[in-house]
Amino acid sequence: MIGRSITMSETQEAVGERLLMIPGPVPVAESIREALAQPTLGHRDPQFVAHFRSALHKLLRLVDGADALPVIVAGSGTLAMEMALLNTLPAQAPILIATQGVFGDRMRQIADTLGLETDEVRAEMGQAVTPEQLQVALQQRRYNAVTLTHVDTSTGTMVDLRALAGVIKAQQPEALILVDGVCATGGVPEYMDAWDIDLILAGSQKALGLPPGLALLIVGPRAQAARRALARVPSYYGDWERWRPIMENPDGYFATPATNLVVALDRALAMIFEEGPEARFARHEAMARGLRRGLAELGFESFAATEHQAPTLSVLRYPSGVDAGQLLRDMYNQGIVIADGIGKLAGQVCRIGHMGNIGAREILQVVDTAERVLGGGRANGSAMRAARAALQETGLSET
Amino acid sequence: MIGRSITMSETQEAVGERLLMIPGPVPVAESIREALAQPTLGHRDPQFVAHFRSALHKLLRLVDGADALPVIVAGSGTLAMEMALLNTLPAQAPILIATQGVFGDRMRQIADTLGLETDEVRAEMGQAVTPEQLQVALQQRRYNAVTLTHVDTSTGTMVDLRALAGVIKAQQPEALILVDGVCATGGVPEYMDAWDIDLILAGSQKALGLPPGLALLIVGPRAQAARRALARVPSYYGDWERWRPIMENPDGYFATPATNLVVALDRALAMIFEEGPEARFARHEAMARGLRRGLAELGFESFAATEHQAPTLSVLRYPSGVDAGQLLRDMYNQGIVIADGIGKLAGQVCRIGHMGNIGAREILQVVDTAERVLGGGRANGSAMRAARAALQETGLSET
Repeated sequence: MIGRSITMSETQEAVGERLLMIPGPVPVAESIREALAQPTLGHRDPQFVAHFRSALHKLLRLVDGADALPVIVAGSGTLAMEMALLNTLPAQAPILIATQGVFGDRMRQIADTLGLETDEVRAEMGQAVTPEQLQVALQQRRYNAVTLTHVDTSTGTMVDLRALAGVIKAQQPEALILVDGVCATGGVPEYMDAWDIDLILAGSQKALGLPPGLALLIVGPRAQAARRALARVPSYYGDWERWRPIMENPDGYFATPATNLVVALDRALAMIFEEGPEARFARHEAMARGLRRGLAELGFESFAATEHQAPTLSVLRYPSGVDAGQLLRDMYNQGIVIADGIGKLAGQVCRIGHMGNIGAREILQVVDTAERVLGGGRANGSAMRAARAALQETGLSET
Repeated sequence: MIGRSITMSETQEAVGERLLMIPGPVPVAESIREALAQPTLGHRDPQFVAHFRSALHKLLRLVDGADALPVIVAGSGTLAMEMALLNTLPAQAPILIATQGVFGDRMRQIADTLGLETDEVRAEMGQAVTPEQLQVALQQRRYNAVTLTHVDTSTGTMVDLRALAGVIKAQQPEALILVDGVCATGGVPEYMDAWDIDLILAGSQKALGLPPGLALLIVGPRAQAARRALARVPSYYGDWERWRPIMENPDGYFATPATNLVVALDRALAMIFEEGPEARFARHEAMARGLRRGLAELGFESFAATEHQAPTLSVLRYPSGVDAGQLLRDMYNQGIVIADGIGKLAGQVCRIGHMGNIGAREILQVVDTAERVLGGGRANGSAMRAARAALQETGLSET
């Protein structure tokens, strides 16, 4: 069995009346919510400092960045994206943005806002940027940095991060490799040092299993050096050099950290290591397979190309003839919250998150509810049987 | 009796082993922590949208800003300070910064970072900027904006906000009036429209009684217009124009809001209106008086000049002969967390917060503990008697 049953059962209890299966925020396990609700500690209290220190340390361990600087500030993934660019690149620096959806496009908007010179390499909708595409793009011009979206939450696609980083390293070894891990970190493997990644950024409300409210960055040595090479950055709160003393030794003050969320983060990261990162990644793969096999029986087809599907969420075309709005409402009324497509994909696809601390039980709940909602009295349980069979193949049991 | 007993007793329970009496973070009432720990809602869930809408509305009501735009984002007070400047002022714009401590100085650092032309008018340590000082400063040059720190957390001083705003309005009616309310909003009166204030910014972990993690701004019509007059601002996450559609109608998406903290904020603001803002402000005055009268018996003297003392915290010189570090440790070991001075005042003063949802019981706990710690066997209860008498004069009963 992959995934400890305590993890799943406590989540089950945590979600109360509705199961939140959108691609973030995700259901938060009860023990994490309990940590969140502990009496607020002072930011210099030894107990809090110990939690903060431990969370910073675990974050590094999670991505194997031996000499990286972890940065945890109140904010969102979008702030982390902005911090990644503004701390490493001078104005007008040329950067290449690899995009396969809304969040790669957002990276470009942020880069434009910061006055960077942006080129992009773009995957077709439902595809991921390939090593070959990237290779061609890198032949055109020298870049200070390349940004990669590991998983794009709008299309459900995942790039082959290791391969892309390898291409960049081979062709432009000086270029920084900046990775948006918002819908990936904690749910799929990311190895900074082994894969030559210079920076990974994330939000708290995705595969880490926390509520939203934290921006997280893990900053490798070359990205740290890039910041030091900048005379100034045009932001105060977003300047990680101002935060550095706190991140190196949390017994200090720059701006008040989000104490309760940091305590909860320490718990969430502890759960990752209790389960084991590899087991956790396998659980995410298994959940994805179970969900997709079950919903395929009902006519849902993956929007993401098969070879690029992310394990953390599924972006699925609605079965033909199904009224998207009605389906989402019916699911909601039956206790399952899933999301519509965003941007151009609104009304075309649904997006179902399956990341963090959920397990087979939640996957089967989604499939069962979809089957009943779509099939009515004619539902014959074939979707549930398919999902169960797929989960059993992967070793992810129901309880 | 000022302040409902339920508020205080639930806080009492909430703080567990130690009572957090630093000037932020503050003890968080149990009902607010319960709201914080509710199962995480999707950011488009009607339940969440209702909480967000309600919190935004209540925030406006709190400061009487009829046509203001409330902005609530994951962050800290420092981010709110930065957003106040970057959204209203073009690069190189001249601004006047009124400072009476570390947080006015921080505003200047932020302004420098953003490339503004900063002049300052500075109060002596322990004093607050006066209308006369401001009047002189405003005669030197025309400014796009003047920033005021309502309460400076480093010195415990409060400006006469209404009078200062009146001076600015009379002398430079075009200048924006930007107020740092971080240690004030929710604990002392601030009336935007009546006092001609263009913007108030705050953090969540002070007089509002929440854990840290939210940056709050209330943006009046002239400050909104100033943003619209800017071609661009050099930030993406911090650009309130990008957030505006969400703040006008939270049923949308820009970046994921800190859902659990927003639900808790809605609860915290509801508590303010259940108590009544005027009663709440009076309670803060009463707590300040009780604490100071009690500690005066032990030899603590106010660092802030009497006429400028803020009701939300007390910055007090240690009694002569007292080892500051030892006192703080002894208090901590006895269950009371208070803070040392910051910056130049480290080791010279202690800082005691008394804001949010605490009451007479917590004030007396601090006084009692200080009396026992300092007096040992010779403590005769005179500090407690003085504090009790002061609280009774104000009508703030013990339970």
